Amino acid sequence: MTDARIALDAMGGDEAPEVILRGAVRACSSHVAAPLAPERILLVGDRARIESGLNEMGGNPGFSIRHASEVIEMGDSPATALRSKPDSSIGGCVAAVRSGEAASVVSMGNTGAVVGASTIGLGTLEGVRRPAIAVTIELTGRPLTLLDMGANVAPKPEHLLQFGLMGATYAQHGLGVGSPRVGLLNIGEESGKGTDLLKEAYGLLASSGLEFVGNVEPGELFIDRADVLVTDGFTGNIVLKLMEGFAGFLFGLMRRELSEHHAAWGGEALGRLKRQIDYSEYGGALLLGVRGVVVIGHGRSDESAVANALAVAARTVDAGVNALIVKGIAGDPAAI
Amino acid sequence: MTDARIALDAMGGDEAPEVILRGAVRACSSHVAAPLAPERILLVGDRARIESGLNEMGGNPGFSIRHASEVIEMGDSPATALRSKPDSSIGGCVAAVRSGEAASVVSMGNTGAVVGASTIGLGTLEGVRRPAIAVTIELTGRPLTLLDMGANVAPKPEHLLQFGLMGATYAQHGLGVGSPRVGLLNIGEESGKGTDLLKEAYGLLASSGLEFVGNVEPGELFIDRADVLVTDGFTGNIVLKLMEGFAGFLFGLMRRELSEHHAAWGGEALGRLKRQIDYSEYGGALLLGVRGVVVIGHGRSDESAVANALAVAARTVDAGVNALIVKGIAGDPAAI
Repeated sequence: MTDARIALDAMGGDEAPEVILRGAVRACSSHVAAPLAPERILLVGDRARIESGLNEMGGNPGFSIRHASEVIEMGDSPATALRSKPDSSIGGCVAAVRSGEAASVVSMGNTGAVVGASTIGLGTLEGVRRPAIAVTIELTGRPLTLLDMGANVAPKPEHLLQFGLMGATYAQHGLGVGSPRVGLLNIGEESGKGTDLLKEAYGLLASSGLEFVGNVEPGELFIDRADVLVTDGFTGNIVLKLMEGFAGFLFGLMRRELSEHHAAWGGEALGRLKRQIDYSEYGGALLLGVRGVVVIGHGRSDESAVANALAVAARTVDAGVNALIVKGIAGDPAAI
Repeated sequence: MTDARIALDAMGGDEAPEVILRGAVRACSSHVAAPLAPERILLVGDRARIESGLNEMGGNPGFSIRHASEVIEMGDSPATALRSKPDSSIGGCVAAVRSGEAASVVSMGNTGAVVGASTIGLGTLEGVRRPAIAVTIELTGRPLTLLDMGANVAPKPEHLLQFGLMGATYAQHGLGVGSPRVGLLNIGEESGKGTDLLKEAYGLLASSGLEFVGNVEPGELFIDRADVLVTDGFTGNIVLKLMEGFAGFLFGLMRRELSEHHAAWGGEALGRLKRQIDYSEYGGALLLGVRGVVVIGHGRSDESAVANALAVAARTVDAGVNALIVKGIAGDPAAI
């Protein structure tokens, strides 16, 4: 498995293909913790632009290229674009995984299009009812994986149970967290709190064999109460966007305050804080539950975020997380 | 109406009754924008403790006192406590409004108990199906009122429509916002986004005659897109608690960074930022839709937050917001 390739969408993201290519080179450099062999990377997109981009950077270090003539833009409607642009770079990445040419998709492009193309093109893992978007942040010095962050706005209790199992499998084998604690995002700690969905999911998780720590309130994201936090895709998306917006707002206020006083120090300290709450530092979002490892980064990912996303993809492929998810779901009668 | 009294729960909050009494005195002092006459304040709680507290502060400036022998603690289960403590200070405040002795309840105590006692004890306004908790924050220089922040975890579309109407009435007449823009908190801007609840509520709000600005994403809380933001009580409570937790976390990080560098300036700047995102600066939460004006402050409210809550109560009573809500709902066929 360790030489399984990663299909990298060279055309996705605000500064594609340049930032993507630099990220790919960086992922293979000795500057990162676990450098990849360039042969593991399959660049998907406009061949001429990729080749000339690589030439400007000193040549192709050994990447493969798969041509795709079309690009799904960030603002495109995912459903429409997937139909009207059959030769998109996102579609090419998914096709490479479907044909066995690659084991993983990494894209900084249109999130909805990547989710749609992967779900339809790859299908779900055996036993998995719904894929979920998992995002890992590190607020407390330990990684916290939240899911679902937007794939299913109205899941059923059994879906949340599977999200818990998928998240725990990823946390343990992809992130190296021993016996991951799984919590349910809710508005109070007592088991009777929240919506009917959450009350039922609480019961399923409590009897699942997972290390279930019960309901976790939003304020507890910041105090290391759980390693995996389960929620529906609507609430998860609200949480993700609120944290992004709020952080941006607070940093803006701070920057204004600081610029009047201590600009030099301020920039540096803000940078440190920003990295701590930025999930792109953790390699983007994983679409768990599909037949392949799919990593979706932020459109404004920089070179380092692209390299991180590639590292997450490689680690998740090499750890065999998907096979372990299938085993976990098969072994847990409550999960089916 | 301008002499209608406000029943103030003297025993609710982390530092009751001392902070509450100081807040009452402050609300009547010339230090605030619209000082209250002391005769408008009815203190409810342990008479002996209230009297000795006031004596220590130089005497009673003219407050009335209504004795209540019991206190519902912050950690008490609301439903149980309301039954087992029939002579609580919260119950006394509600009883004062029911009997016409006061027009408003202000409490920094157990939120669930205040909501429960008020909803049951006062009933809903004519035409109102469900009360909602409204919180006003000022992130962008203009007040933004969010509701429901936790009274109904699973409302129906028609409830969200009424929340929009109640929020707009309060924003206009209680906060002085002309033609308030009403938005629906959602995970995307398009009308087809989000849960079925939100899709239906979108249609109702769009044809309501309110100044409806459509779906508002969480990141747009910070850019002045709306004056009133409607959501279900589950999502609203998640948003409120996440913002509190995240702000506390970021301030903790900042404080650590700053203490190593610029402690004196840091404290001051953090204080300014904190006030800007702290809804207690805006007088706490309003329970809209009940027969009386109910203001619920944070348990850790300080003297100034208590004074703000009293000012909000007085302003909302004096503006006749509840009568205007009843009129609005009666005049809007879609709302019934």
